[in-house]
Amino acid sequence: MKNRILIVNGPNLNLLGYREPSIYGTDTLESINNYISEEAKLLGIECDFFQSNCEGAIIDEIHRVRLSHKGIIINPAAYTHYSYAIRDAISAVMIPCIEVHLSNVHAREEFRSKSVIAPVCKGQIAGFGKYGYILALKGLSEMM
Amino acid sequence: MKNRILIVNGPNLNLLGYREPSIYGTDTLESINNYISEEAKLLGIECDFFQSNCEGAIIDEIHRVRLSHKGIIINPAAYTHYSYAIRDAISAVMIPCIEVHLSNVHAREEFRSKSVIAPVCKGQIAGFGKYGYILALKGLSEMM
Amino acid sequence: MKNRILIVNGPNLNLLGYREPSIYGTDTLESINNYISEEAKLLGIECDFFQSNCEGAIIDEIHRVRLSHKGIIINPAAYTHYSYAIRDAISAVMIPCIEVHLSNVHAREEFRSKSVIAPVCKGQIAGFGKYGYILALKGLSEMM
Amino acid sequence: MKNRILIVNGPNLNLLGYREPSIYGTDTLESINNYISEEAKLLGIECDFFQSNCEGAIIDEIHRVRLSHKGIIINPAAYTHYSYAIRDAISAVMIPCIEVHLSNVHAREEFRSKSVIAPVCKGQIAGFGKYGYILALKGLSEMM
Amino acid sequence: MKNRILIVNGPNLNLLGYREPSIYGTDTLESINNYISEEAKLLGIECDFFQSNCEGAIIDEIHRVRLSHKGIIINPAAYTHYSYAIRDAISAVMIPCIEVHLSNVHAREEFRSKSVIAPVCKGQIAGFGKYGYILALKGLSEMM
Amino acid sequence: MKNRILIVNGPNLNLLGYREPSIYGTDTLESINNYISEEAKLLGIECDFFQSNCEGAIIDEIHRVRLSHKGIIINPAAYTHYSYAIRDAISAVMIPCIEVHLSNVHAREEFRSKSVIAPVCKGQIAGFGKYGYILALKGLSEMM
Amino acid sequence: MKNRILIVNGPNLNLLGYREPSIYGTDTLESINNYISEEAKLLGIECDFFQSNCEGAIIDEIHRVRLSHKGIIINPAAYTHYSYAIRDAISAVMIPCIEVHLSNVHAREEFRSKSVIAPVCKGQIAGFGKYGYILALKGLSEMM
Amino acid sequence: MKNRILIVNGPNLNLLGYREPSIYGTDTLESINNYISEEAKLLGIECDFFQSNCEGAIIDEIHRVRLSHKGIIINPAAYTHYSYAIRDAISAVMIPCIEVHLSNVHAREEFRSKSVIAPVCKGQIAGFGKYGYILALKGLSEMM
Amino acid sequence: MKNRILIVNGPNLNLLGYREPSIYGTDTLESINNYISEEAKLLGIECDFFQSNCEGAIIDEIHRVRLSHKGIIINPAAYTHYSYAIRDAISAVMIPCIEVHLSNVHAREEFRSKSVIAPVCKGQIAGFGKYGYILALKGLSEMM
Amino acid sequence: MKNRILIVNGPNLNLLGYREPSIYGTDTLESINNYISEEAKLLGIECDFFQSNCEGAIIDEIHRVRLSHKGIIINPAAYTHYSYAIRDAISAVMIPCIEVHLSNVHAREEFRSKSVIAPVCKGQIAGFGKYGYILALKGLSEMM
Amino acid sequence: MKNRILIVNGPNLNLLGYREPSIYGTDTLESINNYISEEAKLLGIECDFFQSNCEGAIIDEIHRVRLSHKGIIINPAAYTHYSYAIRDAISAVMIPCIEVHLSNVHAREEFRSKSVIAPVCKGQIAGFGKYGYILALKGLSEMM
Amino acid sequence: MKNRILIVNGPNLNLLGYREPSIYGTDTLESINNYISEEAKLLGIECDFFQSNCEGAIIDEIHRVRLSHKGIIINPAAYTHYSYAIRDAISAVMIPCIEVHLSNVHAREEFRSKSVIAPVCKGQIAGFGKYGYILALKGLSEMM
Repeated sequence: MKNRILIVNGPNLNLLGYREPSIYGTDTLESINNYISEEAKLLGIECDFFQSNCEGAIIDEIHRVRLSHKGIIINPAAYTHYSYAIRDAISAVMIPCIEVHLSNVHAREEFRSKSVIAPVCKGQIAGFGKYGYILALKGLSEMM
Repeated sequence: MKNRILIVNGPNLNLLGYREPSIYGTDTLESINNYISEEAKLLGIECDFFQSNCEGAIIDEIHRVRLSHKGIIINPAAYTHYSYAIRDAISAVMIPCIEVHLSNVHAREEFRSKSVIAPVCKGQIAGFGKYGYILALKGLSEMM
Repeated sequence: MKNRILIVNGPNLNLLGYREPSIYGTDTLESINNYISEEAKLLGIECDFFQSNCEGAIIDEIHRVRLSHKGIIINPAAYTHYSYAIRDAISAVMIPCIEVHLSNVHAREEFRSKSVIAPVCKGQIAGFGKYGYILALKGLSEMM
Repeated sequence: MKNRILIVNGPNLNLLGYREPSIYGTDTLESINNYISEEAKLLGIECDFFQSNCEGAIIDEIHRVRLSHKGIIINPAAYTHYSYAIRDAISAVMIPCIEVHLSNVHAREEFRSKSVIAPVCKGQIAGFGKYGYILALKGLSEMM
Repeated sequence: MKNRILIVNGPNLNLLGYREPSIYGTDTLESINNYISEEAKLLGIECDFFQSNCEGAIIDEIHRVRLSHKGIIINPAAYTHYSYAIRDAISAVMIPCIEVHLSNVHAREEFRSKSVIAPVCKGQIAGFGKYGYILALKGLSEMM
Repeated sequence: MKNRILIVNGPNLNLLGYREPSIYGTDTLESINNYISEEAKLLGIECDFFQSNCEGAIIDEIHRVRLSHKGIIINPAAYTHYSYAIRDAISAVMIPCIEVHLSNVHAREEFRSKSVIAPVCKGQIAGFGKYGYILALKGLSEMM
Repeated sequence: MKNRILIVNGPNLNLLGYREPSIYGTDTLESINNYISEEAKLLGIECDFFQSNCEGAIIDEIHRVRLSHKGIIINPAAYTHYSYAIRDAISAVMIPCIEVHLSNVHAREEFRSKSVIAPVCKGQIAGFGKYGYILALKGLSEMM
Repeated sequence: MKNRILIVNGPNLNLLGYREPSIYGTDTLESINNYISEEAKLLGIECDFFQSNCEGAIIDEIHRVRLSHKGIIINPAAYTHYSYAIRDAISAVMIPCIEVHLSNVHAREEFRSKSVIAPVCKGQIAGFGKYGYILALKGLSEMM
Repeated sequence: MKNRILIVNGPNLNLLGYREPSIYGTDTLESINNYISEEAKLLGIECDFFQSNCEGAIIDEIHRVRLSHKGIIINPAAYTHYSYAIRDAISAVMIPCIEVHLSNVHAREEFRSKSVIAPVCKGQIAGFGKYGYILALKGLSEMM
Repeated sequence: MKNRILIVNGPNLNLLGYREPSIYGTDTLESINNYISEEAKLLGIECDFFQSNCEGAIIDEIHRVRLSHKGIIINPAAYTHYSYAIRDAISAVMIPCIEVHLSNVHAREEFRSKSVIAPVCKGQIAGFGKYGYILALKGLSEMM
Repeated sequence: MKNRILIVNGPNLNLLGYREPSIYGTDTLESINNYISEEAKLLGIECDFFQSNCEGAIIDEIHRVRLSHKGIIINPAAYTHYSYAIRDAISAVMIPCIEVHLSNVHAREEFRSKSVIAPVCKGQIAGFGKYGYILALKGLSEMM
Repeated sequence: MKNRILIVNGPNLNLLGYREPSIYGTDTLESINNYISEEAKLLGIECDFFQSNCEGAIIDEIHRVRLSHKGIIINPAAYTHYSYAIRDAISAVMIPCIEVHLSNVHAREEFRSKSVIAPVCKGQIAGFGKYGYILALKGLSEMM
């Protein structure tokens, strides 16, 4: 299939739905992934999903898809603020990448408003909850 | 009509299409607005458009729609980095607001990565060119 | 009349009374101005009132009264934190000026505790709500 | 008597009137206190006065009045800029407190524009000379 | 005429001649403009003059001349230090621009030595009083 | 068993006893763990031990115990100073956590006095060598 | 008796139990001291207690015990953040000292996470309420 | 064999030769390793090679060789700038270590000129491409 | 007697001679004062000595001598770095003052090189041990 | 002759014309000096020229002309950014001085926008190439 | 001869061998230069040596060789940290340059880790003692 | 003679007596040196004097006396604030050195209160005019 995209979720996002549901909602990561998959099909895109709490594993995965996929959507979670290694990985594979955050990181603690990864992405989307992934998908689709 | 949205463009965006077309493309602000209008209709949303180079005029306009509109999409351009006055205006009218940037501001000069307005918005979208407005429209629509 | 004073209110203060009344109270700017006018009469002072969201218009007004008025009371709102232009205007007209803030700006966000305008004022009063204008009036009256 | 207020003056203010009279005027602290007392009577307020050069003694005094007085007016002088201990004392006794400065501290040396005490006060008044205490008295009276 | 140049003066410069004449001299902005005009004629240049206290109006004017004029001389006054919007305007119109200051801003308050506009100008001239405009004119003429 | 606690040791702590024994003593991590286990039994607490040099593995382990354990004692070693990811993990599982350091980190290199993890812990203990784990155990026991 | 320890409490801690009991609990400093005394007896330690709001008095007391006591436990309260004088006193008497804080200072205002005293202490304990003093006692006992 | 050395390559270096060959050359990591091996033989040194994108795995490997090898050459790539954990690992094993970078990191982005690892190394070599490893080898050989 | 001078020693200097004699020598403060007294007699100067650990007491003493003494020599010890209150006291009494430090404060911890008191003194002398007081005496004598 | 002026060129400017001619043009320093001399004659000014790469030699030369010349034009090149010694020399001789830069230093590396010399000059001119010296000459002539 | 290289040593390096031999070894600069010369011959390179304590003389020498030499190796010693003038000299002559330091500057005082010269060099080598020059020689040879 | 001392004066001090006599007095450097010489004889010390505006020459001179002299008194003037090269020279010769300033540098511009040289000196004296050299002489004599 021509249009394959990798969707990467960083540390602690595997707890979505189990963690403070009054704040983060009751959607699990699995249900969010299903939701994304269906929306993607309508756009003629096939999605692969990857979540890890390990910085190195995320880098390995980004490398793995460098010839097979057309785009990456990444929510680097806490790694957003210091992982120059993930930054370099995205920069190395030369696939267009979109950074997504569930919450509006600019309205939270000071350290969350600084991204070391955004400068090597095509765009950044923050504050739309799970719908942010759909927006990234549409944005990426528009670019391809 | 129930769903009216205000789309605000800040200083120098009136020159779109006339200014460094090799970088910013040949779309004028007018043609981008028409493009947004048509997409909006499909979502059942009516858009009003406002552009000004004057900080005070932008604040006046935000105040003007505080009872009549359901959302604001704003590209504050250079005011992004220092207009606490526009920040307070958005905060005061209590209408959900999305901040949009045409380019990936995180990959440009240092001063462009700091937004004093984002903390009072619902979300931020950067790096998708004119399609960023459509993404903001969809995101706002999803929230309503 | 000998003692005329200009009372300037900066951006977003026109929304007083309509905006988050649980926080800012139900007094509109108009009712506050009436309240000030009456107190002023008791002190033999005539007040002119000016509100604008536009930095340039505020500067124009400060210039306009430079020969006709004996004092200025200004609540620069968000312009407090960056308008070196209003600072220079106050400095240029050489009329005594008092800076007033409704809330205790020192107890809010970090950026609100820095005033670029206070260094050219005679005094600063913060945290007394609308009564702060009366205190400024009394202070200015004492100086004259 | 219902309305008792404590007026605290910090380090070096005992020298008022003896020190650089061309700058600070010829009023001694005692004469200023008498002046405040008389103004206070007109407002139905009884004032106690306290001056010390010792940070610890000021804290002791603030504690002492925590059940007997309805407000505090404090000119912390140099302690303004570093006494987190006085800050905590004010915060602990839960009596409304107003910070007063004789001169416009915002127009003097850089270090004088930072107050570690203001964030726990109800308001701050600066630049009106001895009349600033009267303004604080009126402001406190209005709050009670 | 081939060589038309726009000369922009920013906030508070309309008070020249009326404000602290012992410091700024007795020349009004009008007389300075006449002086510039005459010098310009000798160089075969026609000057248009524009002054405003409003940031937005200055931007509008810079846009207005982008096809008709060959150069801009700007004294942004207080906007020098924070108007990224004027900076973007100058950058957008792609006409050579010279920044002028009447006084040597490097020898005044700390904040006055930082210009956010200078990086997009061809040159900066400070400290020559009204003659600085003539120097800018000659410099611009040499470039053309 | 009701009271199970996880004890996490971060990078390089597996070398305890083998590394610079004149400084760190001759206790290995295993012997320290045995020592903790015995003390814990006296308090009716069962301890699980986990050490890893991998940030992601530490996060996985913290997630794993979120329903089964009543507390976490963590010595994040070098991750103390930059792992926002471990911080988010502790914050997400909502189990009380105590941060422990063998040495007095405040008396070493500047960078060691900043902890990005402490703000989401219940308490911090530093400088007591291996006995610090026992103190943390007692403190946690007191809280439960 | 061989093992005497001094327990020092800094400014505003004399108000414990009377001040915001919903936050700080209903224990007075006296009842906390009794609680510590009894725990200390079990460890064969005799405690002396000292509280003062005066920086100088705290230094005097630390000097007074330099030959008679085997350890110091200090809660410097607000002096934690700026009293280099108390730091030098602890450093001069060469008795092991433990710094204790009732709350987790790392999770409160920014300025509370910086201690100028910790670098000369043997250890620091924060976040365990009154039980923190017991932990310090045990830690000090272990060191002796 | 007496002289064994470990050569560690950090994140993204596994892509050498496949990534932007116009910049980084067409040498793969494998061919570089072969080149190093041959040069090493001439110096009587045997090299082991290790590459990982995972911070923890790099630390594990450094620990593993602490008794068997006489030196370490490390190109920490992006971990150079924040991995205090790798720094502590190098410091703990007490084997001389040389930091190598292919490019002149001091001439690239600001963040790349700061190394948290260099302070515990014997030396740093940057800017010689693959030949930098040979220089490090010779330097290490000279030290042994 | 015409020439009386006050010699003030700040916190912890009362321990001189008893504290780390290998570093600070075996001279007590009393013996240093006797030594100063005798040197002073040769210069026709009478010295009064004052030591306190209390910031407020030092300020009181400085005030006390403002009409009776011709100079002050002060070793503010740790108060050097933050006591704006002592600074204001020296500034208020208008007697020439010399700041003395036993050790070379510029060669110790970073915080010790900043003096908030020196700007209001006539001179500063550091690094000569007890002889520094004699140098200050001679310097003051020369000025008188 | 009455009007003699010294023109000082700092380090590396002796290479003008030989160094990157595509950027700096083909004019040598000698030809620029001739060009300046001729323009100066028209203004009735005689110029002396001095170039040195040595900070001390530049200071010596500035001293040498302090009684014989009426003005100095200096291009301090790299010394602009750190030579407080040249600054003090200019300040000491009390001759009006103009700082000139060939390129627009404000548009180059960050460090080039800071001048420690400009605060003691009458004016600064940057960005006009060799013509900048003529502008300075005219400006200085206007002042005289 | 085709391959001539200049080796520059900055301030205080003339004292090598005479200064703290227990730290810096007993090699004089002369013996180091002989050592370098011999190694260079093996590589077919002829070296010229230059040492000066004078910033200007170093710049003169760099200029002198700009047409005759193929490379520069420089140990700028203390000038490393502030000599923008030497930086510009290196940049101007367009010969490849390597920066060498005897010790690992990154492991010493904070100010020694910042080089203003490195950004214009091809590479930087630190921490190998005199052998660092040989490494630089080889690196340079490889580049030629 | 056993006790020879070098007295070094840095840039611009050769102008003493000729420059702003109302501020710096009418003493020339020569007359000050004579005054020092005579005082020195009384202490059995022979002084050599050296003044230069050139940083390198000052370093050469410091090196020259490293075996022949017993002490150095240096007034580095503007080099105080940035000459790490002079700092290293003083550190290398291992002769006790005293830093002297004529004025109280702590009360002048911000940059003048930072000395990069003081950390390697035995002491610092500032604010006593020419008498400061005598104080330094006495201090050095006391040390020898």
